[in-house]
Amino acid sequence: MSGTVYLVGAGPGAADLLTLRAARLLGEADVVLHDALVSTEVLALAAKARIYNVGKRASRPSVDQRFICRLLVRMGLRHGVVVRLKGGDPHLFGRATEEIDACRTAGIPVVTVPGISAGFAAAAALGTSLTARGVSRSVAFVTPAVARGAASDDHWADAAAAADTAVIYMGALNAERVQQALLARGTPASRPVALIENASGADERIVRGSLAELPALAATLGGGPAIMLVGEAIAEARAALAKADAA
Amino acid sequence: MSGTVYLVGAGPGAADLLTLRAARLLGEADVVLHDALVSTEVLALAAKARIYNVGKRASRPSVDQRFICRLLVRMGLRHGVVVRLKGGDPHLFGRATEEIDACRTAGIPVVTVPGISAGFAAAAALGTSLTARGVSRSVAFVTPAVARGAASDDHWADAAAAADTAVIYMGALNAERVQQALLARGTPASRPVALIENASGADERIVRGSLAELPALAATLGGGPAIMLVGEAIAEARAALAKADAA
Repeated sequence: MSGTVYLVGAGPGAADLLTLRAARLLGEADVVLHDALVSTEVLALAAKARIYNVGKRASRPSVDQRFICRLLVRMGLRHGVVVRLKGGDPHLFGRATEEIDACRTAGIPVVTVPGISAGFAAAAALGTSLTARGVSRSVAFVTPAVARGAASDDHWADAAAAADTAVIYMGALNAERVQQALLARGTPASRPVALIENASGADERIVRGSLAELPALAATLGGGPAIMLVGEAIAEARAALAKADAA
Repeated sequence: MSGTVYLVGAGPGAADLLTLRAARLLGEADVVLHDALVSTEVLALAAKARIYNVGKRASRPSVDQRFICRLLVRMGLRHGVVVRLKGGDPHLFGRATEEIDACRTAGIPVVTVPGISAGFAAAAALGTSLTARGVSRSVAFVTPAVARGAASDDHWADAAAAADTAVIYMGALNAERVQQALLARGTPASRPVALIENASGADERIVRGSLAELPALAATLGGGPAIMLVGEAIAEARAALAKADAA
C-alpha cells in the first residue's frame, strides 16, 4: 500500500505565487522533499510534514539526483501524501522525468502540479508580454546548461534563434557562449535583452540592453538565479513609444 | 487620481490553479474584466467587485480588443483596484501588450501577475515533463493563429520545428496546416504528439499518436480549447520503458 507522490511547482520565489492547489497539498503532506530555492514562508504551509531539503550542491549533481529518486521512492512506499516541491514548474527544466520514472517503476502513483516558471515571473518583472501581435508569435524556453560530464553542444540555440522571443534559463554564467550561439544563428546584435535576477523575489534585479552587451550585462548581476529574455517584444522602447503616440 | 490595473493570469481553468496573489487581488478588486474562459468559481472570489465579461466573440475580434482597452482605461481612471483577469498567463498569447500600452498611455499604472499557462496544465494532464535530460533542452510555445485580416505565414513553425518539444496554442482547428508546416521543416512523421482539450478542467480529454496522425486526432476533439504537444519527451512509451527496465 503506497501513497501518492505529488511533483509540485513551488513557483519562482515569491510565496504568494504558489497555486491554491500547491498550498492545499502542502497542508495535507506527510512528507515534503524540497529544492534549495523554496522559501521558508512556503515550507511553513506544510505544518504536519516531515521536511527534507534535497537541494542540489553544484559539486555532485548526478549522484544527488539518484539519491533524490531513491528517497522519493522510499517515502512514497511508506507515507500517504508525499510532496516533491520543485522551484518554478516541474515540467520545465526540473529533472522531473527521472523522478516520475523512478516512482512509476516502483509502482507508486505520481501526480504533477504545475507552477509559475521563472520565465513568466521575469516577464512580470518587466511588466511586458513575451508575445505581441505582429511582433512575436513564438517563445522558446531553453537552457544551455548540461549535466557535468555530458557533451556540451549548442542545439538549444537553434530554437532560441528561430523564436521571436527567447527565454533562457541557467545561462547567466555562460553569457558569452549564449551571445555567440545566437549571433552565429543570425540574431542581430541589436536585439533587445533583459536579465532578471531573483525574479519575483525581494531582491529582484533587472538589467537591460542589447545582445551585443549581454556578457557585460551578465557581469553586473549577483550570484542569484537569473533569466535572460531576448526579443523585440520586450523592448524597453515599447512603453515610451506608446506615450509618444499619445502626446 | 487613477487606480492601478492588474493584468492577472487566471490559470488554465481549474479554480485551484489560481495563484494566492491572484486570489487576494480578486478579493480586493473594485472592478473585474474577465475573459470568456474564466470559471464562475474563480469569479466568486471577487466578492465586492463589479464584474464585466469581455470575452471575445470570434466574429468581431479586432473591434472587441479596442473596446476592451477603452473600458480598461475608463475603469482604471475611476476605480482603485481594477483586475483584468485573463485565461492562462497574461504574458503569453494574451494580447496583453495592447492593454498595457493603452493604460500606460493614459497614465494608469499597470502590474502584471503571472498565471499557469495552458501548456503547463497540458503537461500535467499527461504527467510528463516537457524537458528531459538528453532528450529535450528547448521548448517552443507557438501559435499559428492570426488576427482576422492579417497576413497568414508559418514563421511560427520555425521555432516549433527547431525546438525539442513544441507546445502549440490555438492550433487544433488548423491541424493539417500545423502538420504540413512541421513536416516541411524536417520534423519526422513519427514524432509523438498529444492533444489535450480543456486541460485541467473537469471535461479534460487527451488523445495521443504521432505527427502523421495529427489531423485525424484533432478531428476527434470537441469544441473546447486544445493544446498540442509535439516531441520525444512526451512519448507515451516512456513510462512503459521505465517499467520494462525494472522487470
